[in-house]
Amino acid sequence: MSDTASLITAWQSRFDDVLETRLELTTSAPELLRQAMHYAALSGGKRMRPLLVYGAGRALGLAPQDLDGIAAAIEIIHAYSLIHDDLPAMDDDDLRRGRPTCHKAFDEATAILAGDALQALAFEILSEDRVLAKHPERQVAIINRVARACGANGMAGGQVLDLSAVGLDLTLEQLQTMHRLKTGALIAISATAPALLAGAAPEILQRLDRYGQCVGLAFQIHDDILDVTGNSQTIGKSTQKDAAQDKPTFPSLLGLDNSRKQAQRLRDDAVAEIRQFTGNCDCLEWLAGYAIARDS
Amino acid sequence: MSDTASLITAWQSRFDDVLETRLELTTSAPELLRQAMHYAALSGGKRMRPLLVYGAGRALGLAPQDLDGIAAAIEIIHAYSLIHDDLPAMDDDDLRRGRPTCHKAFDEATAILAGDALQALAFEILSEDRVLAKHPERQVAIINRVARACGANGMAGGQVLDLSAVGLDLTLEQLQTMHRLKTGALIAISATAPALLAGAAPEILQRLDRYGQCVGLAFQIHDDILDVTGNSQTIGKSTQKDAAQDKPTFPSLLGLDNSRKQAQRLRDDAVAEIRQFTGNCDCLEWLAGYAIARDS
Repeated sequence: MSDTASLITAWQSRFDDVLETRLELTTSAPELLRQAMHYAALSGGKRMRPLLVYGAGRALGLAPQDLDGIAAAIEIIHAYSLIHDDLPAMDDDDLRRGRPTCHKAFDEATAILAGDALQALAFEILSEDRVLAKHPERQVAIINRVARACGANGMAGGQVLDLSAVGLDLTLEQLQTMHRLKTGALIAISATAPALLAGAAPEILQRLDRYGQCVGLAFQIHDDILDVTGNSQTIGKSTQKDAAQDKPTFPSLLGLDNSRKQAQRLRDDAVAEIRQFTGNCDCLEWLAGYAIARDS
Repeated sequence: MSDTASLITAWQSRFDDVLETRLELTTSAPELLRQAMHYAALSGGKRMRPLLVYGAGRALGLAPQDLDGIAAAIEIIHAYSLIHDDLPAMDDDDLRRGRPTCHKAFDEATAILAGDALQALAFEILSEDRVLAKHPERQVAIINRVARACGANGMAGGQVLDLSAVGLDLTLEQLQTMHRLKTGALIAISATAPALLAGAAPEILQRLDRYGQCVGLAFQIHDDILDVTGNSQTIGKSTQKDAAQDKPTFPSLLGLDNSRKQAQRLRDDAVAEIRQFTGNCDCLEWLAGYAIARDS
């Protein structure tokens, strides 16, 4: 294993403890809700967004422990979005990360409320974080960008477009817009939030944003490819669902080969954005590659 | 109409414009989502929480326009909670404020996402507000308290307790705990957030918090009473639902007469908390009375 891959693995295993610690804010919450929140947030996963936070931090000279609040908040928003996406009224999925989805393990009402409470928890974490509190103006800016990334002009908006797209012939541009909102916005803020904390120059912010946008889209194209070619046991969720649900995807629009090429181009574009950085970008490079090479 | 009542009416009608303006942040969101968010947030209602924000602000010498961001954010969180509470998996209500509930006017998926996006919008509003930005540390504190009020230890937690309570014999203490979380927390932060913005002394904060807790509980007791005695056309939502759903309520535990007395006592306690304030508490007093005298 390369040094970079080892570092990433270390971040991944360290992050489980980070999440558990931050979830202690729910200790006095009603037990059923607490359990559902923990079930959804502590179910493993690739931790792509926290890794991007730490990777961007490394490029900017920030230590992982300074970024734990940001990483936890963003991952918790991701966890909430998965609970709600899986609901019967949405994608109606029974399986997530190899286990029953939250509404299957608990019930629909509890799952909806666990998602709601996780979203609130993310903002509680960002607003009580002691490292961020050293720079309250930057803290507010991070909260603002995270809120925008997960709201109507971001993740939630993208999910509406996704659901509306079932059975439609989208253009490539429409498909990209949908994914830019649905997954791209939160992935991009993962890369840019550390720069906001560091008080980095606008150009750095822009480059990290473009890096994040490219990685986010590449990640999604690879997701679409895995849905066609992957193994549901490895992936931990149902496959072949896009075609069964008649959802427009990159492979359905471009074919598998061109989708792979497109993902590769986006990886290259992402890496090109950060090439001039003076900090250590090994992890950001690794993550851009991982987005399109992972088997789950 | 008394001067106080006229002022409250003026605040109410002014607040519609405030909300419309703040909702402009959704202008570029997907149209369906934007419509559902506006439908839920701009459907009238008593605006109890914004009025408490303005009322507390008046007692502290703050102008309404300095508090618009806080008032809008809290009302938007309230609106999101109503959308989710009305869902089939929760209270399964068809009627809200005299109109079809959000999932009836749109569909379940859109309603869930409109709620999700409204929660994010509340934090976007708080973090982009220019008045709050003059005191970034206070702004962060307000965001933190709002997040706590609507999360697992607040509103979402209370809703879990509410759903779990169906068919159970709760003690009075358990019933109060449920309402303290479900409605009390957000009503209390409505009264305390202006004090956080003003940088008020801890004693003022504590008194406004207790005022809000008392008003919140009185408000809820009166809600339970209205569900028994009220007219669904006046109230704008179904009545007699608590008994039909076998939900524990104050009238079912204490009887109607004792429930009315309890609400009255809480109103008196609320007013006693603010009696020593040097600022003008006429609106806060009026609102404490309104909580237990309204017919809808």
